[in-house]
Amino acid sequence: MPSWNDGPAKQAILDFVKTTTDKTNPKFIAPEDRIATFDQDGTTWVEQPMYSQVLFALDRVGEMAPQHPEWKTKMPFKAIVTGDKEAMSKFSMKDIELVFATTSTGMTTEAFQTITQDWMAKAKHPKFDKPYPQMVYQPMLEVMKYLRDNGYRTYIVTGGGQGFVRSYAQTVYGIPPEQIVGSALDTKYQYNKEGQGVLLREPKLLLNNNNAGKAEDIYLFIGKRPHAAFGNTAGDQQMLEYTQAGGGANLEMLVLHDDVAREFAYGPATGLPDTKVGTFSQALYDEAKAKGWTVISMKNDWKQIFAWEK
Amino acid sequence: MPSWNDGPAKQAILDFVKTTTDKTNPKFIAPEDRIATFDQDGTTWVEQPMYSQVLFALDRVGEMAPQHPEWKTKMPFKAIVTGDKEAMSKFSMKDIELVFATTSTGMTTEAFQTITQDWMAKAKHPKFDKPYPQMVYQPMLEVMKYLRDNGYRTYIVTGGGQGFVRSYAQTVYGIPPEQIVGSALDTKYQYNKEGQGVLLREPKLLLNNNNAGKAEDIYLFIGKRPHAAFGNTAGDQQMLEYTQAGGGANLEMLVLHDDVAREFAYGPATGLPDTKVGTFSQALYDEAKAKGWTVISMKNDWKQIFAWEK
Repeated sequence: MPSWNDGPAKQAILDFVKTTTDKTNPKFIAPEDRIATFDQDGTTWVEQPMYSQVLFALDRVGEMAPQHPEWKTKMPFKAIVTGDKEAMSKFSMKDIELVFATTSTGMTTEAFQTITQDWMAKAKHPKFDKPYPQMVYQPMLEVMKYLRDNGYRTYIVTGGGQGFVRSYAQTVYGIPPEQIVGSALDTKYQYNKEGQGVLLREPKLLLNNNNAGKAEDIYLFIGKRPHAAFGNTAGDQQMLEYTQAGGGANLEMLVLHDDVAREFAYGPATGLPDTKVGTFSQALYDEAKAKGWTVISMKNDWKQIFAWEK
Repeated sequence: MPSWNDGPAKQAILDFVKTTTDKTNPKFIAPEDRIATFDQDGTTWVEQPMYSQVLFALDRVGEMAPQHPEWKTKMPFKAIVTGDKEAMSKFSMKDIELVFATTSTGMTTEAFQTITQDWMAKAKHPKFDKPYPQMVYQPMLEVMKYLRDNGYRTYIVTGGGQGFVRSYAQTVYGIPPEQIVGSALDTKYQYNKEGQGVLLREPKLLLNNNNAGKAEDIYLFIGKRPHAAFGNTAGDQQMLEYTQAGGGANLEMLVLHDDVAREFAYGPATGLPDTKVGTFSQALYDEAKAKGWTVISMKNDWKQIFAWEK
């Protein structure tokens, strides 16, 4: 793991893997039970200034606008097409749901994959001006690979959309579609005009994969408790708790965004002035301390954050 | 596959595997895309005279009855505890749901697993008087193994309960929990009295994994179309259609229960007098013929049905 500085975070990972793969160790974990789960946004790649999927939805509104002249005067679309950031910052949950439904449903799962892959191939991060696949944290790619090299199966367990993340996860993380657990829409089986079975994305949320939903969906998709879990916000709390409560050897890690120079700094636990609404709350930091979870300081534990940094 | 007679069904399987694992063949399938899905009841093991999970629920009512003296007079439980088969045959869907909710919810996922494993260890099939794990079709175990030996991942995609099937699938089929797609209840994240995160089984259906639900849930869990699918009833129709519509090499098979001497015979397509309400309907048989799906005749294609047969 060349992008990691020596320190307690790197050591916790090395110790965990050594313990759980040593057959003579009482905490040895059988290969079929070696499961590690990773939150995505803020844990494996950049989540500021907004989630990549929100940017995707906003860009889609722009692309679809020529076919929707009514959006020039109709909120919430008007705010997006006119670039009215103040109005956008006041969007209600209902506004956001309408934007997502308009841009991401009413098409087949295959059509959505094509759209998201096209977007991912050209979209750039507003601060770093790099393509999104390069917004991934190099140290986390190294942890994933290190775990896989030691017989672990790595899962993304994200509050983001399952279909969205699946469209690039194999390329970005080396993680196949069946190991992406995410918020998911209902789909509806239909026949296309050639009479072939396709699945239509419906504007109805089936799984909200945040908070308790993460533990619930880990059971639904995997049926076993993970032995290692990585997160960064209160939305990951239950995933880490559920992992630890499984007993045996276990590893819980939280990424702390305390590197304002190389990435972002946010959340009260940084001790820095809040630049963003932090979801890595003091309560989560306190729980981490009480339960022995390891906090990864981006500033201190990561030699390099992005592969393209020199 | 020693339990198979030579014939078109066995040949279809051999040809499919040969084609899809030969790198020089234009229909070669990359290892990561080698997915085969199997319905359970009636496809990989006996579903008559009633689903194993229904028997489980009825047995649970018997076990719980001493704590529920009110059941002596309260339907639908009264019918079960008094063995009133006529009344049981008239159960409404609401009655059945109440029985399932009473016997299978309000406990943690782990407690349910213990109960189902205990039942599976002692329950016997009413006709064959053999433990349930021996109700599996030996030829289907051989197909699963043959596919796995050739790089396929095998999934159970069942209308039965995911938690129920998971409790024995590793032992019976060699299939791990994360490859069991089934009808699923909502679970609720809670803390037990030690303050540890557990999941409570709720009396609310999250996924009805039958008919169109099978195609939808295959996408939800796997994110790819299978290349091979095995079923036996109209509940498997969409799974087979969805598999075939993916294009490339594909294999769709339906098990026809036409062996009244060794197992059961049911469904209009057998050409035999109906002994049971058949769900392998004439319409499905017609679709199979039109689309080139392979029908497996238990009578003609299977040399041996159960491992214990001599």
